[in-house]
Amino acid sequence: MKRMSGILSYDGTGFSGYQIQPDQRTVQGTLEKVLQQMHKGEAIKTTASGRTDTGVHAVGQVFHFDTPLSIASDAWKRALNTLLPDDIRLVAMEEADPEFHARFDVVAKEYRYRILRSENGDVFKRNYTYHFPYEMDVERMREAALFLIGEHDFTSFCSAKTEVVDKVRTVHRLEIEETGDELVVSIEGNGFLYNMVRIIVGTLLEIGSGKKRTEDVPEMLAAKDRDAAGKTAPGHGLYLWKVLYGKDE
Amino acid sequence: MKRMSGILSYDGTGFSGYQIQPDQRTVQGTLEKVLQQMHKGEAIKTTASGRTDTGVHAVGQVFHFDTPLSIASDAWKRALNTLLPDDIRLVAMEEADPEFHARFDVVAKEYRYRILRSENGDVFKRNYTYHFPYEMDVERMREAALFLIGEHDFTSFCSAKTEVVDKVRTVHRLEIEETGDELVVSIEGNGFLYNMVRIIVGTLLEIGSGKKRTEDVPEMLAAKDRDAAGKTAPGHGLYLWKVLYGKDE
Repeated sequence: MKRMSGILSYDGTGFSGYQIQPDQRTVQGTLEKVLQQMHKGEAIKTTASGRTDTGVHAVGQVFHFDTPLSIASDAWKRALNTLLPDDIRLVAMEEADPEFHARFDVVAKEYRYRILRSENGDVFKRNYTYHFPYEMDVERMREAALFLIGEHDFTSFCSAKTEVVDKVRTVHRLEIEETGDELVVSIEGNGFLYNMVRIIVGTLLEIGSGKKRTEDVPEMLAAKDRDAAGKTAPGHGLYLWKVLYGKDE
Repeated sequence: MKRMSGILSYDGTGFSGYQIQPDQRTVQGTLEKVLQQMHKGEAIKTTASGRTDTGVHAVGQVFHFDTPLSIASDAWKRALNTLLPDDIRLVAMEEADPEFHARFDVVAKEYRYRILRSENGDVFKRNYTYHFPYEMDVERMREAALFLIGEHDFTSFCSAKTEVVDKVRTVHRLEIEETGDELVVSIEGNGFLYNMVRIIVGTLLEIGSGKKRTEDVPEMLAAKDRDAAGKTAPGHGLYLWKVLYGKDE
C-alpha cells in the first residue's frame, strides 16, 4: 500500500460542502466516487485537512488516501483530473510518508475572504465574493484585527453549536488588503473553530461600517458568548487558501 | 410613452444565449418577464444591440424599450435589479431619445476574449476563460492580427450558416494583451458576422501554437471560404464588452 497526498482546488458553488453526505453533491463524495472508479469498484476512503461548508471554496485543500496501485504522481493527477468534474481540480499529487495524516499533522491553515465593494456588484463575482457596497473605514477594521491576533479563547467567535471543548486558538496573522474594488481578509492560525473565520469577518465588517466599535473587541473576546460578536459572513466569500504541515515550516 | 435605454451585464453560463426562445432560459426572456411584472402583466418588447450565443457573457450589452411608466432612472435600476436574478445586472439606465434604436444606431462594438494559459486551469475561471495551456508565440499572433485590421470581406471568418449577403466589415482595433496567466484579445469593429470573433480567436490560437502560419492570413481572407480559417473558439471565453453609439464618438 502507498499513501498518496493531494492538493485540491474547488469551486464550492455547486457542492453541499466538503464532507460526504447521502443524496448530496459533496466534494468528498465526488472525489471518492472517482477514486473508486480507478480502483475497479473498490471503495477508497479519503481524509482531508478539514471540512468546508456549502458554497465555501478551496484553493489548497489537502487530503490523503491509501492505494494498492502503483501509478506515478503525474499520471495520478492526469487520471483524476480527467475523471473529476470541472469544478474540482487536482493541483498536485505526490506519494506521502506512510505516517502522514492530512488532518492530524496540520500545523496551520490560511483562509482568505473576498469582499466586493463596488456599488453595482459584478455578475462574474457573485459566487466568489461577498457583495458589501457600504462605506467602510478600513483602518478601523485593521485596528480591530490587532485585538484578535495571538492566543485567545474564541468562544464568542464560533458557532454556538460548536462541540469542541477547548476553544483557545492562536491567530498568527490577520491582514486586510485593498485590491481594486475588493477587500481581502487573510487569516492564518493554528486551528479554526466552526464558522470562526466567517464570524471574524462579519464582526470586522460591522466595525468598518460603524455598527460596532474597534475598542469593544477585547470585551467581545472576554464575554465568551456568541452573541457578543458580529454576524456570520456568508460562505461564498470564503476560501480555504493553504494548509501548512510541519515540513513546510 | 418614454423610451428607456439600459446597459446590462450578464454571466452567460446559465443562459441559452440572449435571444428569447420558448422553453429556454434566455437573457431577453428573463428581462422581459421582469419588465412585464413591473407593467402589471403588460408585455414589454425589448430590443438589444444584438444577440449573444449560449455561454457568451456581456459586460455592456445595450437595449431599449418603450414604457408608459414615469419612473426616475435610478428607481428603474433599483427595481429591475431587485427583480432580476443575480446573473443579470442592470449597470445603467437612462431615458433615451425617442428615436434611439439599440440595434440600428450601433456605430461600433468591442468584444474581448479571455484565454487562460496556466497548466492546471483554474476552477474559478472555468466558465469565464478558455483554457488553452499550450506553448504560444504571442508575437506571431500579433503579426497575424495586423492582417485582419481594416476593411475586409470576412466570409472565411464567419459561420458557413451566415445569411447576411454583404460580409465586408471593418476591424478598427485588434489587440492581444498578456496579463498574469491570461491572454486577452480585444477587438473593435463596425460590425461582426456570426461567430466572427470566435473564429478570429481560434485562428490566432492556431497561429500562436504553430498549427497555422502568420503569413497565410491574407490567403485565408482571399479564399472567402470558412474552411480556410481556424476553428471556432468556445463561447465561454467571449464577452460583449462595449457597444458604441454616435453620441460616444
